[in-house]
Amino acid sequence: MTMTPQEIDAFLAEPHLGHLATVDGKGHPRVRPVWYLWRDGGFWLTTRQTRHTGRDLAHQPRVAISVASEGRPYKAVIVHGTPEILPKDRDILLAISTRYGEEQGRHWTDEEAMLQSDRIVMRLVPEQLYAWDYGTDV
Amino acid sequence: MTMTPQEIDAFLAEPHLGHLATVDGKGHPRVRPVWYLWRDGGFWLTTRQTRHTGRDLAHQPRVAISVASEGRPYKAVIVHGTPEILPKDRDILLAISTRYGEEQGRHWTDEEAMLQSDRIVMRLVPEQLYAWDYGTDV
Repeated sequence: MTMTPQEIDAFLAEPHLGHLATVDGKGHPRVRPVWYLWRDGGFWLTTRQTRHTGRDLAHQPRVAISVASEGRPYKAVIVHGTPEILPKDRDILLAISTRYGEEQGRHWTDEEAMLQSDRIVMRLVPEQLYAWDYGTDV
Repeated sequence: MTMTPQEIDAFLAEPHLGHLATVDGKGHPRVRPVWYLWRDGGFWLTTRQTRHTGRDLAHQPRVAISVASEGRPYKAVIVHGTPEILPKDRDILLAISTRYGEEQGRHWTDEEAMLQSDRIVMRLVPEQLYAWDYGTDV
């Protein structure tokens, strides 16, 4: 069963982790847990340009992200698209990170992320979005 | 900080979802939540050969899987490798599915999975395994 746009917004407002898939230079899949912010119909994400995710994007700019509830009733949102790469921005980094803890998010933003010269922000507008309550059928 | 093999086994024994990344025929990433069973140093997974995951494996047999705790302290295990594709097996399907609910798992195994002619089991032995308690650095 799919979800309405309102149900998708409500689900993605919960502080789940996302799992971001990229393709490396050899054409092999890679996936990692990431923090995200869902705002205005798109994901805001952050990574470092010199790390795996950033290097993968240089070869294959498309990504996929999966967000799922850990317990029943299972809900999941999967998005495919090509993120726009943007310079780091303190307001966005705070908005992403404080979803997962106010104090830890502020510390991470100012003491780590803003000091990293290769820190970037990604804006992922869905080209494809799959959302469902998938019951037992996983 | 990495985890010991015992810590990895304990973490993966919890009924988290995995997020399985594949590469489709166009070389684009795909990712989806999956049930898993971690046993004897490898993941047991299941999918359907005629669905996306099965079709992707025909193009690119390598996969990556990410398992993460939703809350702090964050723990995650990421594995890369090429799964062995095996016929469906009731004992394995039960062992995977009942981790996520005894009654639902039995129902799913006997009333759905065992009736699907294209249902397969995958055995993924890690070629690379990354495990860490990654604190705030996501």
